[in-house]
Amino acid sequence: MERFKRNERIASLVKVLSDNPNRLYSLNYFGELLNAAKSTISEDIVIAKNALEELGLGQIETVPGAAGGVKYRDKATVDESMRFLDRIAGVLSDPGRIITGGFLYMADVIYNPGIAYSVGKILAGCFDRDSIQYVLTVETKGIPIAMMTARAIGVPLIIARRDNRVTEGSTVNINFLSGSTGRIQTMSLSKRAMERGAGVLIIDDFMKAGGTARGMVDLMKEFDARVVGIGVMITTTKPSEKLVSNYIPLMYLEGVDEKSGKVSIKPNNRLLF
Amino acid sequence: MERFKRNERIASLVKVLSDNPNRLYSLNYFGELLNAAKSTISEDIVIAKNALEELGLGQIETVPGAAGGVKYRDKATVDESMRFLDRIAGVLSDPGRIITGGFLYMADVIYNPGIAYSVGKILAGCFDRDSIQYVLTVETKGIPIAMMTARAIGVPLIIARRDNRVTEGSTVNINFLSGSTGRIQTMSLSKRAMERGAGVLIIDDFMKAGGTARGMVDLMKEFDARVVGIGVMITTTKPSEKLVSNYIPLMYLEGVDEKSGKVSIKPNNRLLF
Repeated sequence: MERFKRNERIASLVKVLSDNPNRLYSLNYFGELLNAAKSTISEDIVIAKNALEELGLGQIETVPGAAGGVKYRDKATVDESMRFLDRIAGVLSDPGRIITGGFLYMADVIYNPGIAYSVGKILAGCFDRDSIQYVLTVETKGIPIAMMTARAIGVPLIIARRDNRVTEGSTVNINFLSGSTGRIQTMSLSKRAMERGAGVLIIDDFMKAGGTARGMVDLMKEFDARVVGIGVMITTTKPSEKLVSNYIPLMYLEGVDEKSGKVSIKPNNRLLF
Repeated sequence: MERFKRNERIASLVKVLSDNPNRLYSLNYFGELLNAAKSTISEDIVIAKNALEELGLGQIETVPGAAGGVKYRDKATVDESMRFLDRIAGVLSDPGRIITGGFLYMADVIYNPGIAYSVGKILAGCFDRDSIQYVLTVETKGIPIAMMTARAIGVPLIIARRDNRVTEGSTVNINFLSGSTGRIQTMSLSKRAMERGAGVLIIDDFMKAGGTARGMVDLMKEFDARVVGIGVMITTTKPSEKLVSNYIPLMYLEGVDEKSGKVSIKPNNRLLF
């Protein structure tokens, strides 16, 4: 088998690690893939690690010991995150997005893979990812960013449905009060969807009164799960009292004024990583 | 500003390109990011390109000319794709997945970010990506793999809804016959969702009679769109006559026998890349 140069080994190493966040690879894995000694791979890893960290492109971590190896953590820097959120807040402030009823058209933004990728990376960085076994969302609009958050953390996504589907087998159903519509709605999740007692991160695109998030918290009780955190892309500033506490929003929607065509949306400046 | 070594520049280059498939970066962009001359960056690119191609980790393409630059194409090799599909077919063949009614529980597979990532990459490789401006799916289960397909191609995702939502503004609605249930259903898409006359790739997780895919084809006519192709993760072999033609399935579900607990599912061996 061909021998690769250091440059080439590093290119491959970075590609494999960054495609599989949080997955632990043994040095032997790369030794075989790249036809090199473990000591050589170790040196390659140090070089790749320094380069990515220097440019804020995420962290390569080495885990010592016989069961150890190397893994990649997808992590946005605070600077990069704030620049990104400023830009998205600007895009969403376009008066052309206002829909009758005071809603804001956001589908093109939250369904854009590049944007969802960045949102997922930032959300993943807001929580203790080692305690998260699943990311949970409820259909439909939150799915892309929840998927990308799950990708960045390296755990499965779970999607609660708004009705019972025959293809999901036995389900656990709960009713919840949608704070924005004032109506009772149903949320269901297959009993097969998750292990009991797991740590779960709840992700959604938008929060108003927090009723949907509260529904997900209640649903998780039925699975004896620990809710590690709640992350939303955007929350409204009103009502200030939500039905859940301890949620982290990336942006605040302060108001949509249909008459004057003014949208006020701001990044959360107190994001902690 | 610090100078980076070739190794470090290559690590960063690969990370940025592979995070943003199909996005064209000028050599100046990397020259500034990495504080190096364009000629140096050009050499780095050649090394990274060869390493990734050698190991089947995708293609780095250079575009000549003043408006040129470099971009990354996320492309799975045929070997890697077939190994992956064999493995997934094995996972899905577990009799424990059979749900009353002859359905197969698949949510844990299609909502797994790593699996959805690979499925998206393989599906993206089955079509002429230069003619695709959007990926379209209909809620809910197809969203994760459609999102990852859109990511691999580097275009926006569009999600048709099964009902009208007030937050989407004016919508185009069509009725379609769900071949599997035999019932008329509705699909809706915001008028703002896409430019008229665009090339669209339709993606879904599962196809039986093809009614839903047909619904999406009809919906696209309302937007004067060209349907470039239809890709599904799994199709049933029966009925053999579908309501759409020219679709590409990654796997065939030949049967689910509730009595004997036997699931027969096979990769599509004639995938062309």
